[in-house]
Amino acid sequence: MPSEQFMYLGDTARLPYGTKSPATVKAYALQAAGLLVQRGVKALVVACNTASAFALNALIEAYPDLPVIGVVNPGAQAATALNSPNGILVLATESTIKGGAYQRALLRGRAQVAIYGRACPLWVTLAEMSSRSKNLVDTILANDLRGHLGPNSPDTVLLGCTHFPVFKTAIATLFHQAGRTVQLVDSATTTAKVVHRTLLEIDQLSTRDDAGSAQFLATDGVARFVEVGQQFLPADFPLGEVELVDLR
Amino acid sequence: MPSEQFMYLGDTARLPYGTKSPATVKAYALQAAGLLVQRGVKALVVACNTASAFALNALIEAYPDLPVIGVVNPGAQAATALNSPNGILVLATESTIKGGAYQRALLRGRAQVAIYGRACPLWVTLAEMSSRSKNLVDTILANDLRGHLGPNSPDTVLLGCTHFPVFKTAIATLFHQAGRTVQLVDSATTTAKVVHRTLLEIDQLSTRDDAGSAQFLATDGVARFVEVGQQFLPADFPLGEVELVDLR
Repeated sequence: MPSEQFMYLGDTARLPYGTKSPATVKAYALQAAGLLVQRGVKALVVACNTASAFALNALIEAYPDLPVIGVVNPGAQAATALNSPNGILVLATESTIKGGAYQRALLRGRAQVAIYGRACPLWVTLAEMSSRSKNLVDTILANDLRGHLGPNSPDTVLLGCTHFPVFKTAIATLFHQAGRTVQLVDSATTTAKVVHRTLLEIDQLSTRDDAGSAQFLATDGVARFVEVGQQFLPADFPLGEVELVDLR
Repeated sequence: MPSEQFMYLGDTARLPYGTKSPATVKAYALQAAGLLVQRGVKALVVACNTASAFALNALIEAYPDLPVIGVVNPGAQAATALNSPNGILVLATESTIKGGAYQRALLRGRAQVAIYGRACPLWVTLAEMSSRSKNLVDTILANDLRGHLGPNSPDTVLLGCTHFPVFKTAIATLFHQAGRTVQLVDSATTTAKVVHRTLLEIDQLSTRDDAGSAQFLATDGVARFVEVGQQFLPADFPLGEVELVDLR
């Protein structure tokens, strides 16, 4: 969607959401959405798995006239489209796993599949570190994948946290070393497709060639936000001036 | 101080503070202190290194009639009391190290000592994990201690985060394996002594034998607060009913 104007809000003053309670995540998500709606967005994408798991319904209720798209259902749909005779392993934050939203979404899509959930508490911080040795990454990943790296390991691994795609190659290698080929699914691409289809359906897709832009907002530490953000974005995608906003 | 009534507030809705900006940590600390002062406390202990580093002066200004005691100065005093010809290594969160409060406090105490600072981004989460393999702990610790485990390694390691004493034995062992004996300092005991002395000085130390108690407050997830808290407290120190409070 190169002609769209994106507005990205990072709640850096209160992150991570992955250890927080459903009620608190819901309250934070509603505050964040409130600011974006005030700024006039035409659709809301909840680009965080924990917030999607706990706040999607509340956001849909709060903004009935706005498309609200989470990442859990698109990710689950992508995973259930694959054949997984040995099951699907969901890797996510502590709260996402405990809440069970992915497990429920997967069961809705394919009732007969074995589903395993594993909280990976260290991975978000690890993904944000500016330098990581291979040994450090492998040790942390293998610790959380233990019990799933063997002849009967799951065929599909669903990366249920927006930070985890950073470790795609490392995860695939660990499975490969255990003699298994794993199908890795993350919700980024499928979510983008849902957003595209939704905007088309409501006739809101921008087609103005020169209109594409991205604007970044953060609730704390814009310098750190740029540092960390640049690790996740392509080198030719500058974050520009990040605006400090207050949700409190 | 077994006759004192302690009130402990954990800001679980917004933790960790260790990656947040000085301005945000200061704002959060002032809100937390406001609630405790409203409850009638006779002294404030800022039992968090990041908050001590960024908010102590603001708290002292806000409550000039109340003793306000941080953990940075007591920790630095304990470290500078030791002989460290090869220097002192401060281990802390990213923000505490970047802010330099420990480095400044150490230099005030002993101007001629070499001071090294190292941010340990994974340690807080690691300390809160309910099960940790020795290999996982050693790999993460060694990663952040690399460059300091050799013949010229620092003599003293100052644990500049309240979570890090959990790893005292593991750190000492890593230094020992590198042929070095290290002096480990944390600010818990020295801070407690400062609190005791301060209460004595202002004639506020409780001596009523039956008055001792501890009450815990948290801003989110009281179930998780109890789970994590019990890992840090002695088995015979029950947390009791944790009160959910709102600082927003």
